[in-house]
Amino acid sequence: MTAAPSGPGRLWVVGLGPGDAGLLAPLARQALEAAEVVVGYATYLDLLPPKLLADKEVVRGRMMGEVERCAAAVDAAAGGRDTAVVSSGDAGVYGMAGLVLETLEARGLLAAVPWEVIPGIPALAGAAARLGAPLMHDFAVISLSDLLTPREVIMRRVEAAAGADFVIVLYNPRSKRRPDILGQALDLVRRHRDPDTPVGLVRNAWREGEETLVEGLGSLDPARVDMLSILVIGSSSTRALQVPADASRKSVMLTPRGYEGKYEIG
Amino acid sequence: MTAAPSGPGRLWVVGLGPGDAGLLAPLARQALEAAEVVVGYATYLDLLPPKLLADKEVVRGRMMGEVERCAAAVDAAAGGRDTAVVSSGDAGVYGMAGLVLETLEARGLLAAVPWEVIPGIPALAGAAARLGAPLMHDFAVISLSDLLTPREVIMRRVEAAAGADFVIVLYNPRSKRRPDILGQALDLVRRHRDPDTPVGLVRNAWREGEETLVEGLGSLDPARVDMLSILVIGSSSTRALQVPADASRKSVMLTPRGYEGKYEIG
Repeated sequence: MTAAPSGPGRLWVVGLGPGDAGLLAPLARQALEAAEVVVGYATYLDLLPPKLLADKEVVRGRMMGEVERCAAAVDAAAGGRDTAVVSSGDAGVYGMAGLVLETLEARGLLAAVPWEVIPGIPALAGAAARLGAPLMHDFAVISLSDLLTPREVIMRRVEAAAGADFVIVLYNPRSKRRPDILGQALDLVRRHRDPDTPVGLVRNAWREGEETLVEGLGSLDPARVDMLSILVIGSSSTRALQVPADASRKSVMLTPRGYEGKYEIG
Repeated sequence: MTAAPSGPGRLWVVGLGPGDAGLLAPLARQALEAAEVVVGYATYLDLLPPKLLADKEVVRGRMMGEVERCAAAVDAAAGGRDTAVVSSGDAGVYGMAGLVLETLEARGLLAAVPWEVIPGIPALAGAAARLGAPLMHDFAVISLSDLLTPREVIMRRVEAAAGADFVIVLYNPRSKRRPDILGQALDLVRRHRDPDTPVGLVRNAWREGEETLVEGLGSLDPARVDMLSILVIGSSSTRALQVPADASRKSVMLTPRGYEGKYEIG
């Protein structure tokens, strides 16, 4: 005879931050330590210190396998095992939190399984830190992936954000399958902003192989951008700082927090 | 005779996250531990474990004293002392990173003082996690503070974000000095969205006294909102989840990651 089931396990949705273990929040680490089952896309799991995953059941998903991954995680938690689902960055910004909740809802488990979303440092914050201070004023965050979103919706948002002078953060800016979408978005923004508007490109922020570049909107070549990049397009008040030749940081972008004349720096 | 000056100290701009010590990144904690001088708004410094600040010079700024605080921090670092400037949330999102860089630039110290922005979990991510998953799709982040920004600019952005169906995150949604600005913003959004659109209100996210509420856009009373709140206004696809009466979480908002019919949940 087996023991009576002891109720559902806990289910955490955990953001790992940009990738550096020094940017993994203690609460996120505690959840991973407590979990018996850890579910995530393999590339993200590989960012974790390996000993954190020792002695656990690890469900390594493939790209695009998010629905199956969430089902596996909900199965595990509903079956009584403490489970963590991981996203890179923040699980709540284009991450796994939504699909986990949709899965719990579809199965009628929203109350039965105790769940918690543990926030992480989103890619937009990791990239902004590497560029200096581009997000000191209002910004719009747009994914250029048209896998689940019609292209018209994406372009309408790019147009609106450009027209209202938001700093624009682009996630998933480019892929082989749709190489033209970034060019189309940049063309829309160019209608509203000066060619000198700084655009920051951060690849692999806070990871091995990090690259940072600030270039003018007019000259940025979409071919330099890939899916591992975050793009930050300045507003009309964003400046590329003139950094002396001996500075360790070459690419610095700043969006002042207020409009000129409202405060004095000294 | 005193020793020859040994060059400038390091200058870190550090995001503390929402306030819970479990959401303070290890890199941020290390910078605070290494710093000889810590500069910040008193309310934020009080969120830190007190022993982290023991034996340091602590410059506790008053509200609105940001310019003086940055000057003090740059003075300290230029004078050879390792210094940390703190913001709550992420220092790069409406935080101190910009003013620190402006101050370094104004004094010609951008290359001479080694500086680094250490990202934190921004308030938008802390609030979203408490609401469930409202930021699974494109969103716009707008501060309603008109202290340094003309009100026309703010309203133009609210209008654009509402018209292009962004989820909208409002920082600094209300103050005694300008009690009407939130009502004006909500009225603009109501022209574009259904009265049933869920709006999430999170007060003191991840802190003592946390409160969470999800209400319809049509009925939300601006008087319930204060400066300690973050407001998340859903897009046309955002839903308030029907949570069973026995659930510990009563207020759950979900913005699906894609448009209906593009994937199946099971």
